[in-house]
Amino acid sequence: MPTDTTPTDAEAACFEAGIKFGSLYHQFAGTPVSPDSAATLESAIEESIENQPHCTAVTVDVLTDELEAELADATADYTELTGRFLEVEIVIDYEGCEVVTRMEMEDGYPLMRLESVRDEQSH
Amino acid sequence: MPTDTTPTDAEAACFEAGIKFGSLYHQFAGTPVSPDSAATLESAIEESIENQPHCTAVTVDVLTDELEAELADATADYTELTGRFLEVEIVIDYEGCEVVTRMEMEDGYPLMRLESVRDEQSH
Amino acid sequence: MPTDTTPTDAEAACFEAGIKFGSLYHQFAGTPVSPDSAATLESAIEESIENQPHCTAVTVDVLTDELEAELADATADYTELTGRFLEVEIVIDYEGCEVVTRMEMEDGYPLMRLESVRDEQSH
Amino acid sequence: MPTDTTPTDAEAACFEAGIKFGSLYHQFAGTPVSPDSAATLESAIEESIENQPHCTAVTVDVLTDELEAELADATADYTELTGRFLEVEIVIDYEGCEVVTRMEMEDGYPLMRLESVRDEQSH
Repeated sequence: MPTDTTPTDAEAACFEAGIKFGSLYHQFAGTPVSPDSAATLESAIEESIENQPHCTAVTVDVLTDELEAELADATADYTELTGRFLEVEIVIDYEGCEVVTRMEMEDGYPLMRLESVRDEQSH
Repeated sequence: MPTDTTPTDAEAACFEAGIKFGSLYHQFAGTPVSPDSAATLESAIEESIENQPHCTAVTVDVLTDELEAELADATADYTELTGRFLEVEIVIDYEGCEVVTRMEMEDGYPLMRLESVRDEQSH
Repeated sequence: MPTDTTPTDAEAACFEAGIKFGSLYHQFAGTPVSPDSAATLESAIEESIENQPHCTAVTVDVLTDELEAELADATADYTELTGRFLEVEIVIDYEGCEVVTRMEMEDGYPLMRLESVRDEQSH
Repeated sequence: MPTDTTPTDAEAACFEAGIKFGSLYHQFAGTPVSPDSAATLESAIEESIENQPHCTAVTVDVLTDELEAELADATADYTELTGRFLEVEIVIDYEGCEVVTRMEMEDGYPLMRLESVRDEQSH
């Protein structure tokens, strides 16, 4: 008997959440950033990704403590944005299904993971 | 009664598939490309994204007919890579769950969508 | 007799100006942008590139009229940042040599050009 | 007496060289790369940037020894392309003026510099 492989709304919502994370990271990684320019960059990243479909909320923290620690030993006063200076939360709503996702460092890698998937339709 | 919002393996597989699509698009959109350099760029994009976790296969077509049509009326002999010059298929395998995704133009937008989600564990 | 091929300060200043333009364009092209998010993105681009060495001032205009015209016929309410939505002026100061550069559309291409090179040292 | 601030051909050539370097770095920094995918990526970067106007030759070395050293201690088998894994030479010819530029690491930063500026017109 063939299995139905049609994606559910919850699966589509998770796919959309992944797209936003990949977009955010690969659009903005490499951006020159300093403690002084971090706040404006946070807002620009949030507003940019919130333009994308089904994206309810994006919260970006550029970790200025980590930036300052990196720059304390450096000859320059800025560096390139990369995963170890970023914490991100993205909330997706797709056809009544809400997905919450986060990116944080784990073992030296920026790990993107699904926090929760809540399908309003199923109640 | 609280609902369980823990993601399933299939949902996690769809999230991983989305990450790869967002990464691919926002890493390589904007790359200078011509009909002559298209084939090498296709291979580089495929091999680059296949490095990412759980990514079984990436197939990239840079649409050289579309490139040539665009450049026929132009003063330059190259342009920037963007969605209307790209068709992409990505296959993800996450914990025995296989997800197939595609990107194609639809109504003038590069539409990324889930084709199928097949959970081997459920048999 | 061998020719001296050592770069002058004015030439080095022009090289620095080019780096900033290439960086700005290829870092931010592809960013999702709408009329509502344009102003924050302008500030973030300016502050980001001003972090780079020898960069005195960056002025970015995201052309919201052009954005609105593009989106009037579209099914989406955002698009990707590209040259036809951007006007940029960058001022470089390198060892007392001031270079002014601009990017504007010309014949359908984003043309980056040197406006003026002023070497304070030569007076 | 007003000073002439019109750029020379040599200055314009240096500006073009800078554009190529900024483009190359900010287009491709962040690309997922492993020792196995490095050679294809090198070719794609070279061919991509050689599309740009006045660009005679681009030579890219992805430093696989440095990649392998980085990955020896890592849980993943790929990383993101960044300056410390790259050596680049770009040759520009603008109106008979040849500019040679290089990027190498210096004090932990990817330093882009002008090697030589040779104006054929002046002989």
